[in-house]
Amino acid sequence: MASPSSLCLLAALLALISWQAMASDPSPLQDFCVADMHSPDHFFKAAKLDTPRKTNKVRSNITLINVTQIPGLNTFGISIARIDYAPLGQNPPHTHPRATEILTVVEGTLYVGFITSNPNNMLFSKVLNKGDVFMFPQGLIHFQFNPNPHQPAVAIAALSSQNPGAITIANAVFGSKPPISDEVLAKAFQVEKGTIDWLQAQFWENNHY
Amino acid sequence: MASPSSLCLLAALLALISWQAMASDPSPLQDFCVADMHSPDHFFKAAKLDTPRKTNKVRSNITLINVTQIPGLNTFGISIARIDYAPLGQNPPHTHPRATEILTVVEGTLYVGFITSNPNNMLFSKVLNKGDVFMFPQGLIHFQFNPNPHQPAVAIAALSSQNPGAITIANAVFGSKPPISDEVLAKAFQVEKGTIDWLQAQFWENNHY
Amino acid sequence: MASPSSLCLLAALLALISWQAMASDPSPLQDFCVADMHSPDHFFKAAKLDTPRKTNKVRSNITLINVTQIPGLNTFGISIARIDYAPLGQNPPHTHPRATEILTVVEGTLYVGFITSNPNNMLFSKVLNKGDVFMFPQGLIHFQFNPNPHQPAVAIAALSSQNPGAITIANAVFGSKPPISDEVLAKAFQVEKGTIDWLQAQFWENNHY
Amino acid sequence: MASPSSLCLLAALLALISWQAMASDPSPLQDFCVADMHSPDHFFKAAKLDTPRKTNKVRSNITLINVTQIPGLNTFGISIARIDYAPLGQNPPHTHPRATEILTVVEGTLYVGFITSNPNNMLFSKVLNKGDVFMFPQGLIHFQFNPNPHQPAVAIAALSSQNPGAITIANAVFGSKPPISDEVLAKAFQVEKGTIDWLQAQFWENNHY
Amino acid sequence: MASPSSLCLLAALLALISWQAMASDPSPLQDFCVADMHSPDHFFKAAKLDTPRKTNKVRSNITLINVTQIPGLNTFGISIARIDYAPLGQNPPHTHPRATEILTVVEGTLYVGFITSNPNNMLFSKVLNKGDVFMFPQGLIHFQFNPNPHQPAVAIAALSSQNPGAITIANAVFGSKPPISDEVLAKAFQVEKGTIDWLQAQFWENNHY
Amino acid sequence: MASPSSLCLLAALLALISWQAMASDPSPLQDFCVADMHSPDHFFKAAKLDTPRKTNKVRSNITLINVTQIPGLNTFGISIARIDYAPLGQNPPHTHPRATEILTVVEGTLYVGFITSNPNNMLFSKVLNKGDVFMFPQGLIHFQFNPNPHQPAVAIAALSSQNPGAITIANAVFGSKPPISDEVLAKAFQVEKGTIDWLQAQFWENNHY
Repeated sequence: MASPSSLCLLAALLALISWQAMASDPSPLQDFCVADMHSPDHFFKAAKLDTPRKTNKVRSNITLINVTQIPGLNTFGISIARIDYAPLGQNPPHTHPRATEILTVVEGTLYVGFITSNPNNMLFSKVLNKGDVFMFPQGLIHFQFNPNPHQPAVAIAALSSQNPGAITIANAVFGSKPPISDEVLAKAFQVEKGTIDWLQAQFWENNHY
Repeated sequence: MASPSSLCLLAALLALISWQAMASDPSPLQDFCVADMHSPDHFFKAAKLDTPRKTNKVRSNITLINVTQIPGLNTFGISIARIDYAPLGQNPPHTHPRATEILTVVEGTLYVGFITSNPNNMLFSKVLNKGDVFMFPQGLIHFQFNPNPHQPAVAIAALSSQNPGAITIANAVFGSKPPISDEVLAKAFQVEKGTIDWLQAQFWENNHY
Repeated sequence: MASPSSLCLLAALLALISWQAMASDPSPLQDFCVADMHSPDHFFKAAKLDTPRKTNKVRSNITLINVTQIPGLNTFGISIARIDYAPLGQNPPHTHPRATEILTVVEGTLYVGFITSNPNNMLFSKVLNKGDVFMFPQGLIHFQFNPNPHQPAVAIAALSSQNPGAITIANAVFGSKPPISDEVLAKAFQVEKGTIDWLQAQFWENNHY
Repeated sequence: MASPSSLCLLAALLALISWQAMASDPSPLQDFCVADMHSPDHFFKAAKLDTPRKTNKVRSNITLINVTQIPGLNTFGISIARIDYAPLGQNPPHTHPRATEILTVVEGTLYVGFITSNPNNMLFSKVLNKGDVFMFPQGLIHFQFNPNPHQPAVAIAALSSQNPGAITIANAVFGSKPPISDEVLAKAFQVEKGTIDWLQAQFWENNHY
Repeated sequence: MASPSSLCLLAALLALISWQAMASDPSPLQDFCVADMHSPDHFFKAAKLDTPRKTNKVRSNITLINVTQIPGLNTFGISIARIDYAPLGQNPPHTHPRATEILTVVEGTLYVGFITSNPNNMLFSKVLNKGDVFMFPQGLIHFQFNPNPHQPAVAIAALSSQNPGAITIANAVFGSKPPISDEVLAKAFQVEKGTIDWLQAQFWENNHY
Repeated sequence: MASPSSLCLLAALLALISWQAMASDPSPLQDFCVADMHSPDHFFKAAKLDTPRKTNKVRSNITLINVTQIPGLNTFGISIARIDYAPLGQNPPHTHPRATEILTVVEGTLYVGFITSNPNNMLFSKVLNKGDVFMFPQGLIHFQFNPNPHQPAVAIAALSSQNPGAITIANAVFGSKPPISDEVLAKAFQVEKGTIDWLQAQFWENNHY
C-alpha cells in the first residue's frame, strides 16, 4: 500500500491554493491529509485564552478555528470558534448554512436564543452561566448577548463542519452589494421604502465567522 | 429475502404518526417505503396547473409537494414546489436550511436573487423569462419577485431534501413568538429601539413552504 | 477567513477540464464553487419553453440541465431535465443509477410507470394530466409515454444528483459496444439466439439524459 | 452513558417487524444494534461452501447474506453473496440499484462483464480464473457466465449496502406484473408487438438476490 | 405543512426508550426532534466549570455531553466533553470509532498525542497551554497527560458524532469480558503468556466517554 | 453531455499522484473514474488462490485489494482482502478506523472475535469453519486465529471503504515512532515502567492491511 506521505502528495500541492474548498464533509479516506506529514503543527493552533481581545461595532470578537487554521481538520467535518463579548456585547442574529453549533460558556454570562423555521417561528432562549452548554440547530437564526454591563464573557463554540459559513442577517439583507431593491424589501418587511432606505444606510463592516 | 411488503410493514405503522420526521436524507435501503404497497397513488399528486390560486399578503402562493404529500418520496432526498405570483407579488427573502433549489419559470417573468455569506454578502440577481432556470445554493438568503404589474407568473422549484424547511427572514426576526428582545435587535440592526418596535408590529401570518 | 474567490480558485482551474467528475453528492463545503465569482450566469440557464423541439427515433427530446450546464450546481446534488414528447412519443424504459426523479407534466398527457426490484417486479403506472406530479425511485426501471396521437406533451423532471446518469435498457442490453454474447442473452431472455440477433440488429442512436 | 443494551432496546422491538427497512446506509451511531446483546450469533452465518447447491432455470444459485441473515450488519452498509454456477450457468444481466459489487472467483472460471451508461454503452468484459477479482460499478447492468460445459464455478460477491437490491432486466422488462404495454415496449425495442408478446411469454420465476 | 410538533410526535414516544440508538449522523430532516416542543431545556445542559471533580484511578474525569444529555443534538452529528485532569492525571490511550476530536485547553497544561495507522505508526505529540487547540483524527489512538505534578488541567473536547463512542486500549485488550485467549495475546504482543496474564490482572473499572 | 472519457480526464492526471487520497466514500458522480477508459483491467485484479504464500512473524499474510490495486473502486466505498494463516497463525488485535468487515472462511478453521467499546468491553467470539461468515463492526478491536496446528486457513474479507486503514494495537501502542512516554503507558496499563520498556522492545515490523 502507498504510504500516507505519497497518498497526500497531491493534497499538499493543492493546499497551496486552498483546495479544501472543493471537498465535502463526509467520511475521510485516510488518517488525515496535510502537506507536511512530519509536523504536529498541522493539528495544532496556539490561541491564548488570557489575552484580552479588541471587539467590533457590536462589541464581540469571533476567532474561528476551521480547516484554514488547522489543515489537519480537512475532511473531518468539525471546527471550533472562540467568541469574546465585551459588556453588553452581542453576536447578532445569524445562521450557519452548513453546521449545528454547541456553545459552552467559559467566562461570564450569556443570554442566547434561536428561532424555529416556518410556520411557527418560535424563539427558544436561555440565560447561561459559566460551564453551561447550549446548542443551535443547523441553519436556524440564532444569537448570543452578554447582558452584564460590567463583565466580559467568553464562549467556545463547536460546529459540525470544517467550514460552517455564517450569514449575519442584518448585513446580508440590508447591506448586500449591490443592495436588494427597496421595492422588494419594503413589501417583505411590510414598511415604507423610506424605512428600508434608513436600515440599508446603517449596515457596517461584517464581523462574523 | 423478505418481500418489500413485509420490510415496509413498520414504516406503514409509523407513517400513521408522521414517522418521516425521524429519517434523514441519505441513500435509501429499499426500493421505497410506503404504507400500501399496491397503490401507485403513493407516488403521485394531482395538482392542476391551470387553476388560478388565491395569494397571500405578499401576493404569492406556495404549494410544496414534499414527503407529506407524496409518501413515496421518503428517504429519497428531493421535493418540489409550485409557486404562483400575482402581479407585483413576491416570495420574500428566506432560506431553506436543508436544501438547494432549482427554479424553472413556467409562466411570466421573475426578478430573482440570492446573497452570499459573510464577509462579502454579494447579491447575485437575474431577470428570468418563461423556460429560464436559476438555482439558489443551500442555506443562502434568496427571493423571487414578479415585476410585471399586469401579468401573473408561475414557477416550479425542485429542492434537494424531502423536507427542505423554510425561514422567512422578516417573520423569523421581527415576528418570532415570543419576540427577540428589542435591545438585541436594535444593536444588531444599528437603529433605535423604536424602529425595531415598529418593525415587530408589522409581522403577519407566515405564508411559506 | 479566505474569501470565497480564493477558496474557489482551484475549482476554477479544474473546471476547465471538467473537474466535477471527481466530486460526490454530499453536503457542500462553501456557498458554491464556480470559476467566475462575479457573474450570476453560473447559476442560470436560458431554456425557452415555447420553442418546438426536434424529437428522436422514439419521438422524444430530453434537455438535461445538470452541473455541466449550470456550474453553480456543483456539490449540490440536484439537477433538472425538460422532456418534450411528440404525439405517441416516449421516453423508453431506463434507469438513473444515481438519482430519484420527480416529474411534473406542464403540457399534455402522459402514461408513466416504474417496475420494482426482484423478486416481485411490480409495475406501478398512472395517467398524468397537466400539473400532475409523479416520482420514480432511485435505480428502478421507468418510462413515460404520450398516448395522445395528436397533441405533444412537455414535462419537467427534477433529479436528486448533480449528474444522475441514464441507462436506456434496450440500448444497453442489445446495443452495447461490443455486443454481449448472444449465448448469454439467449439464456437470459429464454429465447433462441436468432431472436437475440434480431433484437441486436434494431438498436439505434442513444437519445437519453 | 446508557449501556449499549438499553440503547438498543427499541431496535430489538423493531427488529421483530423488520425495522431495518427504514434505516439508511451512512455512519452508524453505536457499536452495533441487535436484539440480543449477549449472543455472537447476530454477527455470524453458517454457510457451508462444500455442499452442492440446486440451481435455477438459468443454472445458478445466489445466497445473499445481508442484514436479514446477519442482524449485526444493520447500519453498516455492506453485505455479501455466494453464487454457484452449474456448467454453462449464468447470473443474467441485472443491476443493483444501491450497491457496487466486488466479485472473487473461488472455484472454476467465469466470463463477466458490465455495460456503461448512455450515451456510450460500452461493454467491459473479462474471463476470470480461481482467485481473480472483478468489480461492477453501482447501478450498471452486469452479468456472469460459466463458459465451462463440464465444471461448476463458485464466487463470493461483496456489495456496498446492507440491502443492495437486484433488478433482473429480462424479468423486470418482460415479466412485470401487470405487464408493460406492448405498444411501449415495441417502440422501445424497435420490433413488432408480436416479438414483444413472445418475449413476455418467456418470463419465469425470479431467481436473484 | 405539518407543524414541527406533530412531525416529532413519534420521536417523542421513541425517545422514552432511547430511540436515538437507531439513527445515524447525516443531514437532519427537520429543525430538530425532541419530545417536548415548548421547552428550551432540550437544548441546554448546566455543567458548572468551577466545581472541583472527583477523578478516577488514572486521575481524570470525563463528562460527556452527547445526545443522551441534550436530546436536541439528535441527528446533528456533534457532541462535546469536558475533561478534568488531576496533577499527573491522564486520559489513557483510546480511540473514538465514530468521531474526530478537537480539544481546547481551558486550564493548565497538557501533553497530548496520537499515533497514525499501519504501516508507519508515527506518534504526533505536543505540549499545550491554556487556550491552545489540538485535533485527533477519527479512529486513531490518542491520549492526554497532565505533566504538572502540582496543578490540575481542564479541557473541552468537541466530537464529530452525536454518540462518538470510546475504546480504552488497555481495558479492551487486557480487560475484556470474557478475556481474549492468552495464546492469542502472547503472540500478538510477542511476550510470554505469563506477561499477558499479569497484564490481564491489572485491568480496572472503565472510566471513559 | 460530456463523454465519460472527458469527464474523467482530470481524474486520470490526478491518479498519477494517488489523488484518491483526497476523495471520500459517499455516492459516486459518474459510472466510474479511471485513467484509461478503454481497458477492463481497471476493474480487475489477478490473485491466484492456489499459490501458497509466505507468512510474517505472527504467521499470517494479508493481501488487500483496495482502490490502489483496482482503480475502478474509486468513490465506491468498498474493498476486499485475502488473508492466509499458517498453522497457529493469527491476524492480531487491530481496528479499521474507516470500515466494517465481513469475513468468509474459504479454507480451514478460524477462531475470531471482537471487543465492544466502553464501558462494557464485551468479547464476542466464534469458531468458524469453511463457508462460515462473521462480521466485525466499524472501529472495534478484532482478531482471527487459526487454532489448527497442522492445517493452514484462508479467508476473504470485504470492507466498507475503498481505503479502510488498519491499526495493529501492539504495534501502534508499543512500537510507535517515536515511542509513547513510558510514564504515560505505565499508568495506562497499571504496570511498572520496566514492563512497558520490555513490551516496547518486542515490537516488530508491521504486517497488516
